Amino acid sequence: MKCELDHIGIAVESLSSGKTFYETLGLGPMTTETVASEQVTVGFFNLDNDARLELLEATEAESPVAKFLRGRGPGIHHICLKVDDIHAAMASLKARGVHLLSDQPKVGAHDRLVVFIHPKSTGGVLIELSQPRGAKA
Amino acid sequence: MKCELDHIGIAVESLSSGKTFYETLGLGPMTTETVASEQVTVGFFNLDNDARLELLEATEAESPVAKFLRGRGPGIHHICLKVDDIHAAMASLKARGVHLLSDQPKVGAHDRLVVFIHPKSTGGVLIELSQPRGAKA
Repeated sequence: MKCELDHIGIAVESLSSGKTFYETLGLGPMTTETVASEQVTVGFFNLDNDARLELLEATEAESPVAKFLRGRGPGIHHICLKVDDIHAAMASLKARGVHLLSDQPKVGAHDRLVVFIHPKSTGGVLIELSQPRGAKA
Repeated sequence: MKCELDHIGIAVESLSSGKTFYETLGLGPMTTETVASEQVTVGFFNLDNDARLELLEATEAESPVAKFLRGRGPGIHHICLKVDDIHAAMASLKARGVHLLSDQPKVGAHDRLVVFIHPKSTGGVLIELSQPRGAKA
């Protein structure tokens, strides 16, 4: 199965303050998108090997990212791996006892199909799997 | 300045237990290397866009990774961005008041020149910059 490092999700108090460091590093411009299903507005910085940094600003006080920020402050929230067949990946992981956070993929940023894997199954890392919608499904 | 997502560093209690999930995901084989300067043995999983996951097992009880594990348990420790001129990047960041963890690059895994940026300067993320030794310097 093909597997790329797609992006790193970083929780920030606000996109406007969170983007400052990455602009200092010479990255940008940041593009933004609101993902209603995850209650976030995200800001993407493209990197040179088709990977991205994704800043996450909560849009609701009780959203997962807002709770993460209250619990530990801003920082890395998740990593996302791009796979070519998310349904096959989910079936394979489930068969091996891996705990997925939803039974079916949801629609995430950039119109991707996504699913999250529980950190208890991965060694403490919240991992998102993502598949471009055109690719399969 | 060119900037790629090189790897994500993930602290694990041991490489042998930490690698299990990633092998379940179909990644591997894992290659290992001990980095004396950081008091870690690292295990790399290559991904398909020239990025990697780097599992970090502490070799000393008082090493930075051992302290991280005691403080918060296993999970994402840092992200690494590959740049083409680490000295230029460091000079540019210093001039903008960014706090670097060393004045000169150190030699990291894969014989790279590396420097870490303090999470206080980045919004809570420990960021490593890395430059292949042949590239410049």
